Amino acid sequence: MSTKIFPTAQDAETAFYEALERADLEAMMAVWSEDEEIVCVHPGGQRHAGQAQVREGWRQMFAGGPSMRVQIGQQVVMTGMMVEVRNVHEHITVAGEQQPRPPMVTTNVYLRTPSGWRMVVHHASPALGAPAAQQAGPADPSASKYLH
Amino acid sequence: MSTKIFPTAQDAETAFYEALERADLEAMMAVWSEDEEIVCVHPGGQRHAGQAQVREGWRQMFAGGPSMRVQIGQQVVMTGMMVEVRNVHEHITVAGEQQPRPPMVTTNVYLRTPSGWRMVVHHASPALGAPAAQQAGPADPSASKYLH
Repeated sequence: MSTKIFPTAQDAETAFYEALERADLEAMMAVWSEDEEIVCVHPGGQRHAGQAQVREGWRQMFAGGPSMRVQIGQQVVMTGMMVEVRNVHEHITVAGEQQPRPPMVTTNVYLRTPSGWRMVVHHASPALGAPAAQQAGPADPSASKYLH
Repeated sequence: MSTKIFPTAQDAETAFYEALERADLEAMMAVWSEDEEIVCVHPGGQRHAGQAQVREGWRQMFAGGPSMRVQIGQQVVMTGMMVEVRNVHEHITVAGEQQPRPPMVTTNVYLRTPSGWRMVVHHASPALGAPAAQQAGPADPSASKYLH
């Protein structure tokens, strides 16, 4: 059982992407709620539900070791007392590849639990790319503001 | 401004899929939160954020009138006092097509607002199909239990 405490959903999200980049299964699972009602949808469209499936999905993905860098952008954040929903674009670069992969659009849902903020949903799927009006400029300040 | 009140997240979800089947834009938007922090990801991967984009996305989708039937299955539901997250498979049949389309995997997030339960996120993407061990049987009782 994990004893890691994330004081904010942002802390949990940061730990999630660090674990993803490091291919660290225990660090990854420490981000997730210990409830059975957790869901992880990988970009290929496979859904894993519950602790065992979610862990096994990440174990398979991490089997080859660390291989990717992830940049997060175009965040939309919905915050409440007990829940935070973050929708982001993931820009993934894989070691040995010259070009970044096409972006993913991802919904991450965090709940405030007795053990701090934890992830309950990660749903990633290929992004079509934002429409022209959405790419930049005053209509969507988040497009560049949150890039890091 | 909508005056519709959904006493439960399930009521909001039912109204969402009814509006989708009827291609009813006003009924659809009555399901959504009136906040600006709403996100809708359509199966093609395009993300719409905020009231104007979300409405315009549905307006375009509904322009041809009602055309589809949606069956929901394999629900995983996470419920709290103020939030409900529902992950489902959508089985869509389009008028004039002999075969159902490949299933979608969808995350729907609802918040309890002063105006009842409202949707804040709809994220739909193509499902790979559950792995063999996940299709049925004791390892995943939700696979069949919640089919309707």
